[in-house]
Amino acid sequence: MAAQILDGRALAKEIRAEIAAEVAAFKEKYGVTPTIAVVRAGEDPASVSYANAIKKTFEKREMGFQLHVLPETASQDEMVELVRRLSADPNVHGIIIQEPLPKGMDEAAVKEALAPDKDVDGVHPVNAGRLAQVAPVGRPPGVLDYFVPATPLGGLEILKRYGIEISGKRAVVVGRSNIVGKPMALLLLRENATVTICHSRTRDLAAVCREADILCAAVGRARLITADMVKPGAVVIDFGVNFVDGKMVGDVDFEAVKEVAGAITPVPGGTGPMTNAMLLKNVLEAAKRQVGG
Amino acid sequence: MAAQILDGRALAKEIRAEIAAEVAAFKEKYGVTPTIAVVRAGEDPASVSYANAIKKTFEKREMGFQLHVLPETASQDEMVELVRRLSADPNVHGIIIQEPLPKGMDEAAVKEALAPDKDVDGVHPVNAGRLAQVAPVGRPPGVLDYFVPATPLGGLEILKRYGIEISGKRAVVVGRSNIVGKPMALLLLRENATVTICHSRTRDLAAVCREADILCAAVGRARLITADMVKPGAVVIDFGVNFVDGKMVGDVDFEAVKEVAGAITPVPGGTGPMTNAMLLKNVLEAAKRQVGG
Repeated sequence: MAAQILDGRALAKEIRAEIAAEVAAFKEKYGVTPTIAVVRAGEDPASVSYANAIKKTFEKREMGFQLHVLPETASQDEMVELVRRLSADPNVHGIIIQEPLPKGMDEAAVKEALAPDKDVDGVHPVNAGRLAQVAPVGRPPGVLDYFVPATPLGGLEILKRYGIEISGKRAVVVGRSNIVGKPMALLLLRENATVTICHSRTRDLAAVCREADILCAAVGRARLITADMVKPGAVVIDFGVNFVDGKMVGDVDFEAVKEVAGAITPVPGGTGPMTNAMLLKNVLEAAKRQVGG
Repeated sequence: MAAQILDGRALAKEIRAEIAAEVAAFKEKYGVTPTIAVVRAGEDPASVSYANAIKKTFEKREMGFQLHVLPETASQDEMVELVRRLSADPNVHGIIIQEPLPKGMDEAAVKEALAPDKDVDGVHPVNAGRLAQVAPVGRPPGVLDYFVPATPLGGLEILKRYGIEISGKRAVVVGRSNIVGKPMALLLLRENATVTICHSRTRDLAAVCREADILCAAVGRARLITADMVKPGAVVIDFGVNFVDGKMVGDVDFEAVKEVAGAITPVPGGTGPMTNAMLLKNVLEAAKRQVGG
């Protein structure tokens, strides 16, 4: 029996409509336009293209978009100064720093220049730390407000909106990046899953993956997760974005795995569109925290 | 065959001697005494007793100790003000805030008043976040300097000093507190273990524990981990401190488990003495970062 397809594109559309309505109400009430500032140095083609996509998606919901580009030759001090200035600017509610940073720039120092309450990408360690320290759902959080990177937040939202139970389930996250794998593992832990984190040093990855009721792939290797690595009926969330012969494919061998899994996100049309929707949501949330009190 | 006993008491003694020598050299070079400040409100007996133990251990190594006690009735603002003042005091290098805080005090707000570079207990979210974000060993860390809570740091040090291989091993951490379970899981991940985190919602805990090459227990339930939950030959690190009929016991049923495990920490005499040694180490390290630059 083929798996249920978890349609991220349709969900994202639904969420964007909800956000557009909330943004309109927010603007009406406070006279403030929730605004994102995208910062980068240089003209890395993928960064340029991603910034354009953000611009389009924000402007379509009548949210504010600013682009701040330093030359490739900018110093770390100039970058830090720009990030600090935007962090202090009351007309900017969310800030994204695009990578790659120019060689020699210390990423850690740059991201810690962000005001945590404008860090809508959840990259500042204080946001990562609050997520790491947050109490399980159902208890008082025990931490101040935080932001979670948009991609894992979107993966979680897919599980929730499809009514997939997480508590008590075994979740396996393959990949331990700071922007997807680790925060996804911490989110699933917050939701009371028993969570395993795998990576390049994991021995017998297939056996570990087969333990998963919920299997998340975030490694950036095309079709790494094959059908024999998936427990029949498991839910598979594919965060991979890879290109093979000009075609976008995930980290999961979709065609084969969908015959084994109980539910699966396609690539494209799964977690990708959700990332975009969650970024809108984080910026609206940032504006609410800063303006709406 | 009975397990190797991982003697935390002997190791801690060795480490304290190393630290005492380093402290003497540091004082000689900089004319500064590495100093800890312990902060609390009220006279919770366990806190009083722990503060006395810290005082003794620091004074024995000729390190500085300060105790700052507010009345039980102190307000959150007074506590935050005290923590800020000590954070700004150049004669204080490390600060510990003792729990429990009086009712109505927001723990999250109090701990974020700490200067991260004096947070020798690793409780500030920025330290938790840097640990969550740190790159695996062998790569550039990608984060600024951080502190890890002393108890999990001591558990890791036991593994390292006994030459126990971590990379590629399956590690299971039972317990997800912010002070032991979660940071231990993140440390093991940093060391390239494949890490699983279990907790009260985990189904079939015994089966998950049996997957572990390295099993860490940090739940605070006497003898929860029984022999049938341990894979033969596994390394067992017991962070539990429980009292049964006036006797201190760990989270592991030591007498039975030592017949199955390959190596095991006893309670008392395992992770407990290491916590104390790691706190000394963190305060010395804090002084080095602040003074030795």
